[in-house]
Amino acid sequence: MTRPRKAGKPRRERAATSGVLVVGSVAIDTIETPRGRAEDVLGGSATHFALAARPFAPVHLVGVVGRDFPGEHVERLQGLGIDLAGLERADGLTFRWHGRFTGDMGRAETVSVHLNVFESFQPKVPAALASTPFVLLGNSSPRTQKAVLDQLRSPRFVMLDTMNLWIERERQALVELLPRVDALCVNFEEALQLAGEANGARAIRRLRELGARAVVVKRGEHGATLATAGFQFSVPAFPTERVVDPTGAGDSFAGGMLGCLARGGKGPASLRQALLYGTVMGSFAVEGFGTSRLEKITRSEVEGRAAALRKMITV
Amino acid sequence: MTRPRKAGKPRRERAATSGVLVVGSVAIDTIETPRGRAEDVLGGSATHFALAARPFAPVHLVGVVGRDFPGEHVERLQGLGIDLAGLERADGLTFRWHGRFTGDMGRAETVSVHLNVFESFQPKVPAALASTPFVLLGNSSPRTQKAVLDQLRSPRFVMLDTMNLWIERERQALVELLPRVDALCVNFEEALQLAGEANGARAIRRLRELGARAVVVKRGEHGATLATAGFQFSVPAFPTERVVDPTGAGDSFAGGMLGCLARGGKGPASLRQALLYGTVMGSFAVEGFGTSRLEKITRSEVEGRAAALRKMITV
Repeated sequence: MTRPRKAGKPRRERAATSGVLVVGSVAIDTIETPRGRAEDVLGGSATHFALAARPFAPVHLVGVVGRDFPGEHVERLQGLGIDLAGLERADGLTFRWHGRFTGDMGRAETVSVHLNVFESFQPKVPAALASTPFVLLGNSSPRTQKAVLDQLRSPRFVMLDTMNLWIERERQALVELLPRVDALCVNFEEALQLAGEANGARAIRRLRELGARAVVVKRGEHGATLATAGFQFSVPAFPTERVVDPTGAGDSFAGGMLGCLARGGKGPASLRQALLYGTVMGSFAVEGFGTSRLEKITRSEVEGRAAALRKMITV
Repeated sequence: MTRPRKAGKPRRERAATSGVLVVGSVAIDTIETPRGRAEDVLGGSATHFALAARPFAPVHLVGVVGRDFPGEHVERLQGLGIDLAGLERADGLTFRWHGRFTGDMGRAETVSVHLNVFESFQPKVPAALASTPFVLLGNSSPRTQKAVLDQLRSPRFVMLDTMNLWIERERQALVELLPRVDALCVNFEEALQLAGEANGARAIRRLRELGARAVVVKRGEHGATLATAGFQFSVPAFPTERVVDPTGAGDSFAGGMLGCLARGGKGPASLRQALLYGTVMGSFAVEGFGTSRLEKITRSEVEGRAAALRKMITV
């Protein structure tokens, strides 16, 4: 049995009426890529998301770690301004993932995975965070995502992440969430799989028919697309030559998007900017092992890449 | 032994000082896709290219067909304004290809291929066409492409197409052509293969280092990218829901590009427009079997899709 307690001191006692809330995994990763190996580094979807959203808006993280989770990680995240009031410390071991990327690094091979305390994690959104306006339901079972959604109070914009595992195993529960969120964020293959289509344009339409108000499709090296009832918008990938570790690229993309929305609102123009900044944050994430590159990022680096990307789509 | 003679009457006797010249294959195709089957339809890279360039500029085709090539195809192409003065009729059978697309139609399976008269084709550019300003060196062996290049007189812009076969078998001859042309046009996988890289951004840089002044990378459903010394520009694919037959999509893309350049010149703004119109023409090409959709295209349909595509990249 795990006994939840808080890790680190809450940084804000008042209700979070601004910023971004992410509910997802915090992990310790070992990663091998053609560029090298990183052992026992800070990982997890919520971690990458939080660090990518941080340049844009206050970020609140809800997740769980075990008793082995190094205090230095907590201090580092807090030092970077991430609110960890919602980070439980359970009596067990932290989620651990060991992954290997080879060749074009298009896909990770899982060497080993131990969900540990994440397996039985039932996220509790602290009362002070329940009305955070922008929320990412990080990749986990649709039932857990629904339980989180039920705890939120009038969020302005909720984005849902998922993966092939849940599409295969809990498709119906996942589909039932679509009309309850503002955006679905998936990669191209997942979009086809969830829609049951072989063509991207048809898949996007089908996902919108299933109730997703906005569909965000991540195309890896080929960019990303956002489709709503009113418009469709695409950006190319930022042409990153030195890909060190793709781990967390998608989470960082989502972090950049929601951070940007939290700053600029959820109108069409802001959604377009969000796709662009999501792309920028994803491009930084892959340039270092784990979260190393994201932790060092400066606002002017971010704006530099955003400007370059805008030029790449100026006719 | 083949005895060349002209098919159809030349439409222009004067030197072609404007428009587009394509040197490539003219074929009779049988195509199977999940949408149906088309038997013995007009095909070939030069054909698709010519029909896609036609809305923009005068088009001159250099190619070869056999004695079995139906006169109705010649009349149809001429009726659509394609200059066939450079189309040889050799004493043999026309190039025939039978292809099958399944699933997401991402790749053709060749059921049978008979190069026939195309196998020994040594293209002769008629004197009246040798100074056509915009030229596509259609997919064939680099030696043949070099022989064509040597016949051109001061072209303004030459684009080189190729495929995995030549990259495997005649890489060196292909690489030697790169500094002699204005643009290389390849799909994403071919770009990686020719560059010997696993990452698209690095591949583009490497191809430019090998001498390609502009690199055009076709990403299929994910759009296209153009990279020069001065800028990089990307467009998403037009979201075509009804893909009937992908045959000739790449050639149609190239046709739209060169047609657009022939109309607007080869400056950076015109190159950007060309990438956009190439994408538009590729999206029409796949909506019918063979060349059927391209043959019926109207200028206002083209402009409609170009406008929609521009909106999709407007931040």
